[in-house]
Amino acid sequence: MSRRIDHVAILVRELEQAVAFYRDTLGIEPDEIREVPTEQIRIAFLSPGGPLASKIELIEPMTPDSSLMRFLEKRGEGMHHICLEVDDIDATLQELKAKGVVVLDQQPRIAAEGRAIFLHPKGTNGVLLEMLQKDEH
Amino acid sequence: MSRRIDHVAILVRELEQAVAFYRDTLGIEPDEIREVPTEQIRIAFLSPGGPLASKIELIEPMTPDSSLMRFLEKRGEGMHHICLEVDDIDATLQELKAKGVVVLDQQPRIAAEGRAIFLHPKGTNGVLLEMLQKDEH
Repeated sequence: MSRRIDHVAILVRELEQAVAFYRDTLGIEPDEIREVPTEQIRIAFLSPGGPLASKIELIEPMTPDSSLMRFLEKRGEGMHHICLEVDDIDATLQELKAKGVVVLDQQPRIAAEGRAIFLHPKGTNGVLLEMLQKDEH
Repeated sequence: MSRRIDHVAILVRELEQAVAFYRDTLGIEPDEIREVPTEQIRIAFLSPGGPLASKIELIEPMTPDSSLMRFLEKRGEGMHHICLEVDDIDATLQELKAKGVVVLDQQPRIAAEGRAIFLHPKGTNGVLLEMLQKDEH
């Protein structure tokens, strides 16, 4: 079902400060910094292992009343989710539902890099798991 | 300084249950399950992207009074740390200290796969970051 870890996401208060830490302290340059209007977030992807390796995604929520901002207020900055890449998100969604996994999306949502669903942490050892089918480029 | 994401670690209560979830529900087989006596943990590594890709490490603390067990009791199961591979852990430690980063180890510790140091989450946007120089095989 899942092909690889696409990225690990970290929730931060100020994207530029977090990008500067990774760049100046750890020597990891950001690939890109951009806004995702559909999710009301600003993100940076970092690829310490090169373009084909798993990435770090830094996420800054843009909207005060969003679920991500509430997560930030409640738990503080830190790791937010792990994203696994899959070949076919629709088949994955059906298979997971058939197995009784609690999914947070009844239809794949439009994510930063493709179509995705999230699995509820209560069924995944406390980890918010994203399953992502990437757009073809 | 850092080469790639080596692994993302998830703290769990029962290793066999977590391994079964990844295997039976997500189709990700464990590479190995073993004990790390120096850390008083049992671990499983999973490589959904193959042997050269970033791994998932499932960790079960073995000792009631350990810091990992206290973390588990306080925060529950979930993501615990991100490990970045480096070429030279001694040089990395000196460089990070020179930059004023708060490190949790004054000397590299013996980890499951090599020598490692941990960075305090307060200086890393809430993320417990491990820097690891892997043993040569």
